[in-house]
Amino acid sequence: MTERLVVIGGDAAGMTAASQARRRRPAEDLEIVAFERGRHTSFSACGIPYWIGGTVSGPEALIARTADEHRARGIDLRLGTEVTEIDPDRGRVRSRGADGREEWTSYDHLVIGTGAVPIRPPIPGIDAPGVYGVQTLDDGEAALAALDRGDVRRAVVVGGGYIGVEMAEAMLLHGLEVTLVDRNDQPMNTLDPDMGRLVRKEMEQLGVRIASGAAVREVLTGPDGRARAVVTDEAEHPADIVVLGLGVRPNTELARAAGLPLGAYGGLLTDRAMRVRGTDRVWAGGDCVEVLNLVSRTEQHVPLGTHANKQGRIIGTNIGGGYATFPGIVGTAVSKVCAVEIARTGLKESQARAAGLRFVTATVESTSRAGYYPDAGLMTVKAIAERNSGRLLGLQIVGREGAAKRVDIGAVALTAGMTVEQMVDLDLGYAPPFSPVWDPVLVAARKVADAVAADRRAG
Amino acid sequence: MTERLVVIGGDAAGMTAASQARRRRPAEDLEIVAFERGRHTSFSACGIPYWIGGTVSGPEALIARTADEHRARGIDLRLGTEVTEIDPDRGRVRSRGADGREEWTSYDHLVIGTGAVPIRPPIPGIDAPGVYGVQTLDDGEAALAALDRGDVRRAVVVGGGYIGVEMAEAMLLHGLEVTLVDRNDQPMNTLDPDMGRLVRKEMEQLGVRIASGAAVREVLTGPDGRARAVVTDEAEHPADIVVLGLGVRPNTELARAAGLPLGAYGGLLTDRAMRVRGTDRVWAGGDCVEVLNLVSRTEQHVPLGTHANKQGRIIGTNIGGGYATFPGIVGTAVSKVCAVEIARTGLKESQARAAGLRFVTATVESTSRAGYYPDAGLMTVKAIAERNSGRLLGLQIVGREGAAKRVDIGAVALTAGMTVEQMVDLDLGYAPPFSPVWDPVLVAARKVADAVAADRRAG
Repeated sequence: MTERLVVIGGDAAGMTAASQARRRRPAEDLEIVAFERGRHTSFSACGIPYWIGGTVSGPEALIARTADEHRARGIDLRLGTEVTEIDPDRGRVRSRGADGREEWTSYDHLVIGTGAVPIRPPIPGIDAPGVYGVQTLDDGEAALAALDRGDVRRAVVVGGGYIGVEMAEAMLLHGLEVTLVDRNDQPMNTLDPDMGRLVRKEMEQLGVRIASGAAVREVLTGPDGRARAVVTDEAEHPADIVVLGLGVRPNTELARAAGLPLGAYGGLLTDRAMRVRGTDRVWAGGDCVEVLNLVSRTEQHVPLGTHANKQGRIIGTNIGGGYATFPGIVGTAVSKVCAVEIARTGLKESQARAAGLRFVTATVESTSRAGYYPDAGLMTVKAIAERNSGRLLGLQIVGREGAAKRVDIGAVALTAGMTVEQMVDLDLGYAPPFSPVWDPVLVAARKVADAVAADRRAG
Repeated sequence: MTERLVVIGGDAAGMTAASQARRRRPAEDLEIVAFERGRHTSFSACGIPYWIGGTVSGPEALIARTADEHRARGIDLRLGTEVTEIDPDRGRVRSRGADGREEWTSYDHLVIGTGAVPIRPPIPGIDAPGVYGVQTLDDGEAALAALDRGDVRRAVVVGGGYIGVEMAEAMLLHGLEVTLVDRNDQPMNTLDPDMGRLVRKEMEQLGVRIASGAAVREVLTGPDGRARAVVTDEAEHPADIVVLGLGVRPNTELARAAGLPLGAYGGLLTDRAMRVRGTDRVWAGGDCVEVLNLVSRTEQHVPLGTHANKQGRIIGTNIGGGYATFPGIVGTAVSKVCAVEIARTGLKESQARAAGLRFVTATVESTSRAGYYPDAGLMTVKAIAERNSGRLLGLQIVGREGAAKRVDIGAVALTAGMTVEQMVDLDLGYAPPFSPVWDPVLVAARKVADAVAADRRAG
């Protein structure tokens, strides 16, 4: 008998699950219906800052697989159709089409891939014209249309996280005066403050004004109703364009209404196979779920396309009759502002403390190539290791070309549960164009291993 | 009572050992005498191709620490002084100074860091003017002097390993017509033939003529006695300059004469602490030792500055009263020819076979950045995994910018003994400028994991 898979959300998690299930089960065996309330499927939200900045073309380039491509693979994709209710007891969802018509669709398997929604603080003016999000292709088009008007000179970016610093770069590339407003003391709050300060310094050298430690209170509008300034506790920042990069939260209203289990961050809680806990045929992946951090052993909300793709593939494999599990994450993230690369993995100090871990740290400066090789870029590497055990807990890197992806060394070491002593003699690739004879990560590992040893001696 | 440490060889292993021992023990406690037969200490041999190619300045830039700097740290460094005999029974070495005077020096600890010597096949003409090695600063100066003469148009590089391909790049940078002569079927014999073919194709596109599968028989000289052509079994290759990159072998004649234990490759055999086996106060590190390959569990000769530095540090720590061991290597190596990056770690197919391992492989093509991001460089990644266990055995990468250092992911995974299934969901850094949503290494891991699973099903 043919089963039916219903997918809510046409992006990375949902459509990867659908594609992978289809790969394993033909249409006679598995009917697939996918609901997407927007106009596009499978687009790279992470690419939007680069599209707005003009580094990449768009929006077509950002669409990994079009609606027609999905349909050609036997997926009944319904764009402009919003799911308004999940009824897990009867195994069905209610949807509303573009024409307003509602209907119920029953499922044998349900995949929830509803993603995340941008955080918009409820302050005056936040919804005014001239204030742009960076979440959807429509957001990107609206921001680009505003930039193309030509009378835009000053940009205020609200939020100093990944999207915020990437949008600061995008605005610089448009030749604008850029102010970054961030309620934290430093941009890149996913780094420790000492590493965030390096990012701040680099951004200031790029000409970005950083207004930190100040929450946004209001967006002032002009006589034409458009945003004209961002007001914080401390100052008023004139703006011809305002970009919001305040992060996202799991989009789980539907799931909450259906009584599905949510975690501390509002994300769906799943088992290792990505099945929603307490259910037997409801699955969830991507920005709407919480994931296990393998270092802190706690659930976290980490909205990243790479996790969504992996989780979608795992869900599709399981629905397809195979077996796959998601092991969890170690908190790796990389980004850049112009030539400044930023990377982190594992726990930062405050996260380690919150997890009840005690630790030592070490920070080193080194270069991406042999010091004598041209364009050897400086980088600062900070390593955090657990006291006594010497287990690596986290790695943070800020520097020039070749800095960011070095964090993968830490990501693998964290996954393997390595100690920093074990990392000291890792056989990493060495040649003058690619690394000093001691890779910067090894130098950091060595220094933090010395700190672990000194700490042990001190008792 | 003051002890005396004697070091033979003033390069990476020996001088790092000396410096590290000095850091831990002051001159009152440990006298350090270092013998170096050449004129320099602590220079980066790996940098010589880039100096000859004009990419880096030299030779000063290649000297990590000068003789005077070593002396300022209380090391009695004797340049131009060759050790001619080791007498382990009486704990002394005989040396001959520049003036020909010989003397015995007794030691409490001896470090052998005699490095490696270039392989020079005993064929006619091999020592003619116009034939250059790439091992010492003197080699580099001689080659550069020849290139500066201005009448040099055609270069023949003999040997297709790391030094060979790097010297091919150097010769291209001088605007020469370059022929690479290699007795193997492909350059880069440390890769599998299918991956070596990619290097060959790329080098041919750069304009390098590749004469493979042909051993060198003779170097012809002209009326002026200078090399004028390289003769192989198959052809005669006219040359205004001949560069030898035929690899090196451990320089262990002294050690052999002293009855110290050598392995199958002629390198000194040490214990984990880098003490020469069967001795209690003789240590060895760098290009003159064999190292344990953690994947094949056999000894190998891997002459690389990064190992020499690590081993020197370990020796110095142990002599200094601390405790450190060298865990072994996994066979990581990276290089490049112009924009083509080459990397490998672990075992290639023939090495795995020789170690008695059975395996499956998978090869994928992917990009260094999101496909839509500018300058996304193509790369080919080959992964080798053990049958049944699924343990990663090796990783090879050939591609554009961002390819080489990705091999570090494999190096850490090999060290940790990870299976390719464990690698599939590694939390690697993802952002459009740095990686596709699935890092190329993950794509390869996934494909080879599928191959492992299919192989298991097939029994």
